Amino acid sequence: MGAMKGVILSRNWNAQIVDITHEIPPQDIHAGAFNLLSACRDFPPGTIHVGVVDPGVGSDRRGLVIDCGGRLFVGPDNGLFSWICEREGKWRAFSLTETRFFRRPVSNTFHGRDIFAPVAAALSLGQEPHEFGPSVADIVHLEPLEARLIDDQRIEGRIIHVDRFGNCITNVTNQMLASRREPAAWRISLNGHEINRFHSFFAEAGANEIFCTTGSAGFLEISVRNASAAKTLKVERGQTVLFAATTLTEFAPR
Amino acid sequence: MGAMKGVILSRNWNAQIVDITHEIPPQDIHAGAFNLLSACRDFPPGTIHVGVVDPGVGSDRRGLVIDCGGRLFVGPDNGLFSWICEREGKWRAFSLTETRFFRRPVSNTFHGRDIFAPVAAALSLGQEPHEFGPSVADIVHLEPLEARLIDDQRIEGRIIHVDRFGNCITNVTNQMLASRREPAAWRISLNGHEINRFHSFFAEAGANEIFCTTGSAGFLEISVRNASAAKTLKVERGQTVLFAATTLTEFAPR
Amino acid sequence: MGAMKGVILSRNWNAQIVDITHEIPPQDIHAGAFNLLSACRDFPPGTIHVGVVDPGVGSDRRGLVIDCGGRLFVGPDNGLFSWICEREGKWRAFSLTETRFFRRPVSNTFHGRDIFAPVAAALSLGQEPHEFGPSVADIVHLEPLEARLIDDQRIEGRIIHVDRFGNCITNVTNQMLASRREPAAWRISLNGHEINRFHSFFAEAGANEIFCTTGSAGFLEISVRNASAAKTLKVERGQTVLFAATTLTEFAPR
Repeated sequence: MGAMKGVILSRNWNAQIVDITHEIPPQDIHAGAFNLLSACRDFPPGTIHVGVVDPGVGSDRRGLVIDCGGRLFVGPDNGLFSWICEREGKWRAFSLTETRFFRRPVSNTFHGRDIFAPVAAALSLGQEPHEFGPSVADIVHLEPLEARLIDDQRIEGRIIHVDRFGNCITNVTNQMLASRREPAAWRISLNGHEINRFHSFFAEAGANEIFCTTGSAGFLEISVRNASAAKTLKVERGQTVLFAATTLTEFAPR
Repeated sequence: MGAMKGVILSRNWNAQIVDITHEIPPQDIHAGAFNLLSACRDFPPGTIHVGVVDPGVGSDRRGLVIDCGGRLFVGPDNGLFSWICEREGKWRAFSLTETRFFRRPVSNTFHGRDIFAPVAAALSLGQEPHEFGPSVADIVHLEPLEARLIDDQRIEGRIIHVDRFGNCITNVTNQMLASRREPAAWRISLNGHEINRFHSFFAEAGANEIFCTTGSAGFLEISVRNASAAKTLKVERGQTVLFAATTLTEFAPR
Repeated sequence: MGAMKGVILSRNWNAQIVDITHEIPPQDIHAGAFNLLSACRDFPPGTIHVGVVDPGVGSDRRGLVIDCGGRLFVGPDNGLFSWICEREGKWRAFSLTETRFFRRPVSNTFHGRDIFAPVAAALSLGQEPHEFGPSVADIVHLEPLEARLIDDQRIEGRIIHVDRFGNCITNVTNQMLASRREPAAWRISLNGHEINRFHSFFAEAGANEIFCTTGSAGFLEISVRNASAAKTLKVERGQTVLFAATTLTEFAPR
């Protein structure tokens, strides 16, 4: 990342560069996507977000600049920005083909330094997204961000992220539950475990209690007080999590 | 931390934001307290330090802004700033109750982003500490920073930090020893080990030698050349460490 | 590192401070040297690079400021900057003896904060390198950066770095091979393994394939798709790697 900052500052000495996180595991596009999704809304409009989780670097995967409601995103077309596009709804993407903006030579192993950083620097100096290449509509998408409503009493969600504390973050929001019935009227099934405790905050839970809370990005998450929920419940990202109305669950076996 | 920087820059684009460390273990208030204590004096007067080691987030633990000799500290009232207050002696603390300064909505899981960052931004724009809420005198304190003088020949200290190299940092300062007798006239007892070598710097020690040196924050620390003293001596933070005059130790068994 | 930034900003509030990396293992001068070598060229001329991998701190090892083609380097005289000097060819080094620029007191354990940061701040305010002390010609050198040409068909290289993905970076450049014969006409021997696949980029390789590619710093590196080459091949930094013309290898056994 040092070299990327050097490239940006070489082109725009007045750039204000901010690191979002240093904790994305190697090649983990989903973790990058989640971190960008969580952080980007809190930055001022016009911020240029550069994302470089890029296992396909050097192949024919495209580079993109995306204008998403006035926020700009630069990086590989591998799904890194798809959740942001899905959530915001309105976006325009452009393929990075105008090589005159790139650092020379362009390596096959580090487009963060050679393409994305110089494109971001050019954007910061006033270049418009459409100047970097043709508009594209078919960007790569990860699995959908939105949870699936099976019926009015059941929501099928997914663990979309495990954070460094071991919290298991679902793609189900508090609003999805609350618009149907109060939180206490839901029961959660995850990896063979039933969870029916909802807390507003961590310190409210008892020692080693497994509970559900609303995380800082607005998604419901499964946590264990003072321990890693992912380890305790043996959960991995991508697993299904079912939210069911307690009335339904109670009557189901009869 | 990305979102916190976004919140600050959204309110004060000209803020100069500096990361002190990314190495505080999850929920480790003591490690946060030690790192702040070590780093804060080297920043210019007027610097606003934001600390977010916050296991009690969402509970009724208070948020604070503390003015400590012209340096400002913002964060949870859980002891994170107590060693700084103890060392500096003079401080004024205010409880963060003026919600108009907060980001909306305030989550129950990330006050760093929703309360502390926007308060820090407001301070950086000229708001005064007392504008954020009422003055409070009873802030939460960790165990005292100061080592206990048993008598003129014995000092009872504590391991207050283990750094990433495994050095065991005590709360005993060189001045406490030197004002009584020369360093060589002291012997250290830690976890069943006797240490009587004092060195000015690491490279002075022999391979695998266990020794005492003055760390960069001014505290005496126990180190092992090219190894982790914490692992070698099986030391954990909080353990007692005894400094005794060698004359005392030599005569003691008789 | 927090305290170093504080020292710099206390002296020059307008300094633009950028972290190159937080991933240098404790005391690992070679890793520091490689990271500086990779990153420094992308920063603007006049950038001041501060390096603090400093196991000899407090001993009589010198502190240095080096002017290397208009880029400035500040840090310990332990080889940290020797590869940059070797590559650039032209440099002037000065021993840091003018104590009036230092922070007081100078500790024996953290010259990064007490000497290198304040010297860097002074440089950023216009002080010239020669003002910090006498010119020195005999700086400490690591093993040479340049690979050894045995004859026109054989190059003896060395693994100079293992990155966090486990890629094994050699000191052999693509130019060294290409100026003699095409890449496909070379075979690589490393730790008992023969590698004869060259790829332009990672995604070109098959699953678990061991291959050679040109890394972002311009050096040839040995990689395994989706795995750590260092672990797979049990390679450690410093090991010898032999590049031999395939014709030579094929005829050798006769």
